Amino acid sequence: MFITLEGIEGSGKSTQIGLLTTALERTGRTVRVTREPGGCGLGQTLRAILLSLETRNLDSRAELFLYLADRAQHVAEVIRPALAAGQVVLCDRFADSTIAYQGYGRSLDVALLQQLNDVAVAGTWPQLTLLLDIDPEQGLRRALARNLQAGTTAAEGRFEAEHLDFHGRVRDGYRTLASLHPRRFVTVDATPDAATVAARVWDVVSQRLGG
Amino acid sequence: MFITLEGIEGSGKSTQIGLLTTALERTGRTVRVTREPGGCGLGQTLRAILLSLETRNLDSRAELFLYLADRAQHVAEVIRPALAAGQVVLCDRFADSTIAYQGYGRSLDVALLQQLNDVAVAGTWPQLTLLLDIDPEQGLRRALARNLQAGTTAAEGRFEAEHLDFHGRVRDGYRTLASLHPRRFVTVDATPDAATVAARVWDVVSQRLGG
Repeated sequence: MFITLEGIEGSGKSTQIGLLTTALERTGRTVRVTREPGGCGLGQTLRAILLSLETRNLDSRAELFLYLADRAQHVAEVIRPALAAGQVVLCDRFADSTIAYQGYGRSLDVALLQQLNDVAVAGTWPQLTLLLDIDPEQGLRRALARNLQAGTTAAEGRFEAEHLDFHGRVRDGYRTLASLHPRRFVTVDATPDAATVAARVWDVVSQRLGG
Repeated sequence: MFITLEGIEGSGKSTQIGLLTTALERTGRTVRVTREPGGCGLGQTLRAILLSLETRNLDSRAELFLYLADRAQHVAEVIRPALAAGQVVLCDRFADSTIAYQGYGRSLDVALLQQLNDVAVAGTWPQLTLLLDIDPEQGLRRALARNLQAGTTAAEGRFEAEHLDFHGRVRDGYRTLASLHPRRFVTVDATPDAATVAARVWDVVSQRLGG
């Protein structure tokens, strides 16, 4: 089973992936945790380019193609082999991030992005996408606190430095995607504490695995 | 004026770009020589990934998107500003390379590649594309001799290591493109010595510049 987690900065994706992995492993399943960008060897290099503050002058189309390159390689090298081996794949961000960030956030053509995603994904779409939904202001406050704790204030990441209205557009984009793909998406309110969110996530996942 | 040079390995693009630059500068024009992949800062990094023998396991779709990322950034950062400044831009490989190598060479969907190129190029198509046409066997012999001279036999490049029939498909692809775009493409026989080819190239370019 291929599960992706989506949401804006500070929605708690990493925390929930950790908790979901533990829960899945407790049922005897082998879990492959991965992420975009950076889930494969090529992606490591690209992630450094994409997330560095120094590439602020990156053309929006160039940025898009780098994400797609990472995705294509990631699917071929990591996701498809893991699924073929019967593992549960949990991926932190996937194709929907491109639509939400580049499409709704940066106003690139959404229909075109869907087409490009289809090329990159080459048929390997997730069975379940968990959208961790949170108010952008609360999300950014959380992301900032996390960065302060990690001592990375100086380089808190390109996306987190974007204006609040950008993150608002991304969130709205995610909600639109969820309504367009109601069978694949399940929206989880990410406002409560991590344990509460994790319980809701586990409800959804265990139901899908059982059904 | 935006001029691109295309052709298989060993067709003499670099030599002809050097000679054409000299000829253009003699007429008082400012020439901006550039190339793909690698014509901009981002491209330097990507070129290293793309041309290294270590990335033989690079997924064909990932490779495609890396070339497109380089192209989008290159157009935005280098080509468009140079053209806006009134310079003549000479580019060693451009969008047609994607169609010839990934489309005809690696059998990716040519119509889709055209669409992707349109996204990456964003309206900045060359006014003139010089196709240096040569028999693949002769071209590869030249490329090999060049590498021997440069002492780079051990890492003669990923594309040059491909089978001869691959380069044959690429050459045929280029010739198809030239026949599909007869106003933009001019095919030059690259079999003779460099000076003879350069004279023919200059005929074409000076006519276009004068007309």
